[in-house]
Amino acid sequence: MTEPLAPGSTIGILGGGQLGRMLSVAASSLGLKCHIYEPSANPPAGQVAACVTTAAYDDTAALRAFAESVDVITFEFENIPTGALDVLEALRPVLPGRTALATSQDRLTEKNFLSGLGLMTAPFANVETADDLLKAVETVGVPSILKTRRFGYDGKGQIRLKSAADATAAWAELGNTPCVLEGFVDFSHEVSVIGARAQSGEVVCFDPGENVHRDGILHTTTIPATLTTAQRTDAVILTGRILNALDYVGVMGVELFVTPSGLIVNEFAPRVHNSGHWTQNGCVIDQFEQHIRAVAGWPLGDGHRHSNVVMTNLIGAEANDVAALSRDASVGIHLYGKAEAKPGRKMGHINRITGPA
Amino acid sequence: MTEPLAPGSTIGILGGGQLGRMLSVAASSLGLKCHIYEPSANPPAGQVAACVTTAAYDDTAALRAFAESVDVITFEFENIPTGALDVLEALRPVLPGRTALATSQDRLTEKNFLSGLGLMTAPFANVETADDLLKAVETVGVPSILKTRRFGYDGKGQIRLKSAADATAAWAELGNTPCVLEGFVDFSHEVSVIGARAQSGEVVCFDPGENVHRDGILHTTTIPATLTTAQRTDAVILTGRILNALDYVGVMGVELFVTPSGLIVNEFAPRVHNSGHWTQNGCVIDQFEQHIRAVAGWPLGDGHRHSNVVMTNLIGAEANDVAALSRDASVGIHLYGKAEAKPGRKMGHINRITGPA
Repeated sequence: MTEPLAPGSTIGILGGGQLGRMLSVAASSLGLKCHIYEPSANPPAGQVAACVTTAAYDDTAALRAFAESVDVITFEFENIPTGALDVLEALRPVLPGRTALATSQDRLTEKNFLSGLGLMTAPFANVETADDLLKAVETVGVPSILKTRRFGYDGKGQIRLKSAADATAAWAELGNTPCVLEGFVDFSHEVSVIGARAQSGEVVCFDPGENVHRDGILHTTTIPATLTTAQRTDAVILTGRILNALDYVGVMGVELFVTPSGLIVNEFAPRVHNSGHWTQNGCVIDQFEQHIRAVAGWPLGDGHRHSNVVMTNLIGAEANDVAALSRDASVGIHLYGKAEAKPGRKMGHINRITGPA
Repeated sequence: MTEPLAPGSTIGILGGGQLGRMLSVAASSLGLKCHIYEPSANPPAGQVAACVTTAAYDDTAALRAFAESVDVITFEFENIPTGALDVLEALRPVLPGRTALATSQDRLTEKNFLSGLGLMTAPFANVETADDLLKAVETVGVPSILKTRRFGYDGKGQIRLKSAADATAAWAELGNTPCVLEGFVDFSHEVSVIGARAQSGEVVCFDPGENVHRDGILHTTTIPATLTTAQRTDAVILTGRILNALDYVGVMGVELFVTPSGLIVNEFAPRVHNSGHWTQNGCVIDQFEQHIRAVAGWPLGDGHRHSNVVMTNLIGAEANDVAALSRDASVGIHLYGKAEAKPGRKMGHINRITGPA
């Protein structure tokens, strides 16, 4: 695309969860419509979208009709089947694009890509065979974490090895699928950068947030993060390098470990990111609008924030706390319209304004 | 209703224009769904709502099905036919309620109500006959403004009388329908208060904004308004009196003329109001969410703002300026998804952040 998408155009979104929902709301501010593609019925995003297709990712006819009804396609999750991408890409631009998806879908590819850029990662080794596993434990050592190369999220698909003796059982528990063994990183805290790159190549980042996890799931993101000025600059520059190397268009979340020897890249997600939800109440142009602007060829916001924020996820039954939380007028409430509050399920989040930026 | 509406519930909205659209978006943050009722096809609000009914306001079956599919009903415009209200009210609560609608639908009733509260209005006289018109011109004088009692908006349905000789022709131009003749008020500027009242009786106001009109249509609202502390307090207190007297539930916009002898009430609108759009980028809880909270029985936000804002409407072809405006990251863009930019049509608005509050 060379021209910005005109108001009235339609953005196709693969995935109808909370990220698709908040993308659709952001698109509406710009006069853009959204069409959601989602295999499961009644997705959260469908409650605020102009159109919903309920179909599987191998339904070629449905994919084709979807693509033909929209002007550009984006996604809320990275594990889009290659076959679906083949169908869609033949008809419409799919952004942030295939390279970013292929790179982030596989932890080994991702780590090789990051190392290739000269960025620091945790020590890692590929595990495809029993022999690989033994060698990996030797080179990477213990404690370390065995992670499936694909389809991991929110702490799923990974097991911590306390000793070399745990390795075989852990790998079996992960189904003996291709894994990477990651060395333990002695970090003080985790931060993440929400970066964006426009079709023009322009790169903009929001100020890094500091993340606290609980049970493997993001619990809070606090803005600003505890970082020196140099670390802050490093975080933004390395995010820009990742975005440029992938010729990326859209918003990306980059998770970083802060260590005495520098910032170590944990992983990146080629989409809007849970740790960027604070921007909804901290910025004029939030991560969702920033992503829509990028894929629609509009100018990006500048990442400026007016307020400091603490974002807290509402997991499972925590969404019931909303009645009490709604009494606090400094709290922005964001519920996802999910019917059932299963344990571990992200039901919503709150953004507490803690003061002017 | 005694219990707050649970997430997952549905709010019915009469009217599918931009106000319904922004109400639906606000409701989604609270995990609430919206069902839009609108006679014309493809309404702007339908692009971000869970459900749309396209039917006339005299379609009793459609009204009934709509009411039965929702938990509570609200509206984005005040001229709802009485017959439709009769059908809906029998099935579900309709908020802010019939008294507010009846009072604001007729300029004479509205002015009598305001006078009855001891609030200052422009001098006015009822005009139902040619004889009334002559007497009105005598008591109210010229210059003055002849306004239809019903269905006026955005400067429509009103004519300025420069001399007594204009009166008969002006009334004929307005169709010889019931009118009020309003005396000229020598005001320095117009401000408006966006107030809200909860089902509990709690009243909260946003800080008044200063309005500038152009061709009879709101052009800009600037926050904060030019007001003394005493005027600011007066504005909020009189808004509270109006809300209480109507046993009101929801958000109301009250337009006030600032004069040396005090604040004169021009009119009030029993709904979210164009002059409250600035709250979207100035507050954690904006007027749309405040209204949804009120009608859903949730606690209200406290009206606090984090930023000062200038709101500017985009009328007709001005919406084409959005490409240039989108380059300014201090500008929040809000387009309404209307297909055609007719002259005088509200296509969107922008909120420019001018600094911390």
